[in-house]
Amino acid sequence: MPSKQILVGIVGVGLVGSELVSQILSIPAARNPFKIVFLASSTKVLYAPVVDADPAKWKAALAASTEAVDLKALGGYLRTLVAQQQGQGEGVEGRAVIVDNTSAEGVAGMYAEWIGQGVSVVTPNKKGFSGDRGVWEGILRAAEGEGAGRWLNESTVGAGLPVVNTLREMVGSGDRVRKIEGVFSGTMSYIFNEWSGVPSGKGEGEGGGRKKFSDVVRVAREKGYTEPHPADDLNGADVARKLTILARTIGACAVGETAGVPVLGSYRDVQTQSLIPKALEGEGSGDVFVSRLGEFDEEFERLREEAEREGCVLRFVGVVDVENGVVKAGLEKYPVSHPFATSLGGSDNIIMFHTERYSPRPLIVQGAGAGAAVTAMGVLGDLLKLV
Amino acid sequence: MPSKQILVGIVGVGLVGSELVSQILSIPAARNPFKIVFLASSTKVLYAPVVDADPAKWKAALAASTEAVDLKALGGYLRTLVAQQQGQGEGVEGRAVIVDNTSAEGVAGMYAEWIGQGVSVVTPNKKGFSGDRGVWEGILRAAEGEGAGRWLNESTVGAGLPVVNTLREMVGSGDRVRKIEGVFSGTMSYIFNEWSGVPSGKGEGEGGGRKKFSDVVRVAREKGYTEPHPADDLNGADVARKLTILARTIGACAVGETAGVPVLGSYRDVQTQSLIPKALEGEGSGDVFVSRLGEFDEEFERLREEAEREGCVLRFVGVVDVENGVVKAGLEKYPVSHPFATSLGGSDNIIMFHTERYSPRPLIVQGAGAGAAVTAMGVLGDLLKLV
Repeated sequence: MPSKQILVGIVGVGLVGSELVSQILSIPAARNPFKIVFLASSTKVLYAPVVDADPAKWKAALAASTEAVDLKALGGYLRTLVAQQQGQGEGVEGRAVIVDNTSAEGVAGMYAEWIGQGVSVVTPNKKGFSGDRGVWEGILRAAEGEGAGRWLNESTVGAGLPVVNTLREMVGSGDRVRKIEGVFSGTMSYIFNEWSGVPSGKGEGEGGGRKKFSDVVRVAREKGYTEPHPADDLNGADVARKLTILARTIGACAVGETAGVPVLGSYRDVQTQSLIPKALEGEGSGDVFVSRLGEFDEEFERLREEAEREGCVLRFVGVVDVENGVVKAGLEKYPVSHPFATSLGGSDNIIMFHTERYSPRPLIVQGAGAGAAVTAMGVLGDLLKLV
Repeated sequence: MPSKQILVGIVGVGLVGSELVSQILSIPAARNPFKIVFLASSTKVLYAPVVDADPAKWKAALAASTEAVDLKALGGYLRTLVAQQQGQGEGVEGRAVIVDNTSAEGVAGMYAEWIGQGVSVVTPNKKGFSGDRGVWEGILRAAEGEGAGRWLNESTVGAGLPVVNTLREMVGSGDRVRKIEGVFSGTMSYIFNEWSGVPSGKGEGEGGGRKKFSDVVRVAREKGYTEPHPADDLNGADVARKLTILARTIGACAVGETAGVPVLGSYRDVQTQSLIPKALEGEGSGDVFVSRLGEFDEEFERLREEAEREGCVLRFVGVVDVENGVVKAGLEKYPVSHPFATSLGGSDNIIMFHTERYSPRPLIVQGAGAGAAVTAMGVLGDLLKLV
């Protein structure tokens, strides 16, 4: 076992959390730098778990635990463990990390405290970095302290795709971002690739007719590509959160001037176009929402036709436009020869970085931007950076 | 100044080296984690340089230095410096790094020794990782030792594009690579984008006629896109070296089985198709080579026509085909709808990772893969990983 093992506490053991445990265990023990020292669900925590290849066993042990989760205690637990293992002389810095696999605001609210205690945070949870500015700035401030932990959040945007760290290194080495533009939602990508495709092939129903927007959304929901309530995708908030993370990353990591990057109070400050028809706003039932969405197919059809008259397809994109000081999410038209039209498929993300160095042609990253396996991979990639 | 400054020795102060110095200096002093402690050209070394924003000054000081370069002494120099700064109690590990901006075999031959001394190595120099297997394995062995330095080589493939580290994290987290396929040479990319474009626009000369292969190469050389002797690009060795690095990275970093990845004795084991006409092999003069290349335009034209009859374009690509145990570089045909045909322009690189997790659609990285600014950025990105 490597001499400098990193103690890992895992909060959130759903699809991503379970996959992460499996991926950590797949590293041969002789050179595995990670030791899982607790597992926590939303209600319970299991300290010093016996984690072996059969997830059913640790899941049963966690379910049988009588210990309630106390988020405030987790950082201290890791500090104590490190001290026991290393002797009191050594700092906790770089030796312990909490992975937050939840999407809970409450867990994100703990990052600053944990980081201040010397515990690093790795997470795909967007809440801490895209919510209220005070929370975000608290994380930054905590990380600047002596002996503080680090935060790594590659998997908050594009899952395992190299997006956030590429941006960090780009601006951290003095490059200047002009514009980041991309398809950031796997769900939106699927819906628009299906519904507004390049002529011939896609965009046509089985009978040769055109697919209706509501049908595409219904099928996406049936396949599990949308949230249980599709309005949670169609409102654009997920994209707005990712854009907030990218815009703030530029501000936090750049070494040069960042004039033009708007300072966002939260993701709600992103100019976001919701695709929820006015009449369905506030509809609480996903089932009712989907069944009534067809009433608005003609509205969507008009948008598609307008785009097609211009030789374009529609995509739901996010833009951090530094030169013009705008961060926005919404529908845009792209000519059929544009990579967003031709190169995209499935539920791929695609992200273009237009920068001083990557000019006139952008740096492009593309691939699956959602799913437990690639999200956990992004998390483990960040963990490996701590080794 | 940050408490844990990293001492950086720079070997090679040409275009990339000078740009790297500028990028390091662009980080505000108050939070600059790097201190440049020597600069070395191919003949001289300047210890404890005063490096300020005007490169003319440190270049003059280096030129005026009377100290000859002794590569063997550089690792020891850094060890001594670290010991002085930190007290004898602390290790050198993680505190000192040598950046090799040369393309010299001799410098690459020093990596194992430096790493064994606890000094990390960061470099865009492909020689150490793509040459004889013994040198490569020496680097791996050295890095496994107690207190050893690390090696980071992101900028050896695709310059600043996230390629090597993406692959490291991918296979290090248990993903299985099926095939890596890409356009890895900026020069080859430019030549074939110009010469074998998708119909309409590209591939046509100004008078509406077709461009000749020799003319495209001549113009590329005039623009500085090729080596002084274009045969050094057309022989495919640069691509073979990059493929060797990727194939070896899979072998070295994977946690799962790597069955199918050929163990390469050196880049010469890659199945490489040279584009140098037989009659011009061994022609020592770049000028003569270019002036005679036109004699073979018809041969190239036949290849282009054959591709076009199949609705394809030609690209010079590299493939690490793990499933079939083949590593090869050469001309391939791609339908005009393929990203290698439509999406590529300028002298862009494009790399597709087909893996177990990125399936059926690959992870794609694209953008400028050569040039001093983006290469130095890749180097600085690696340096930042050491902080």
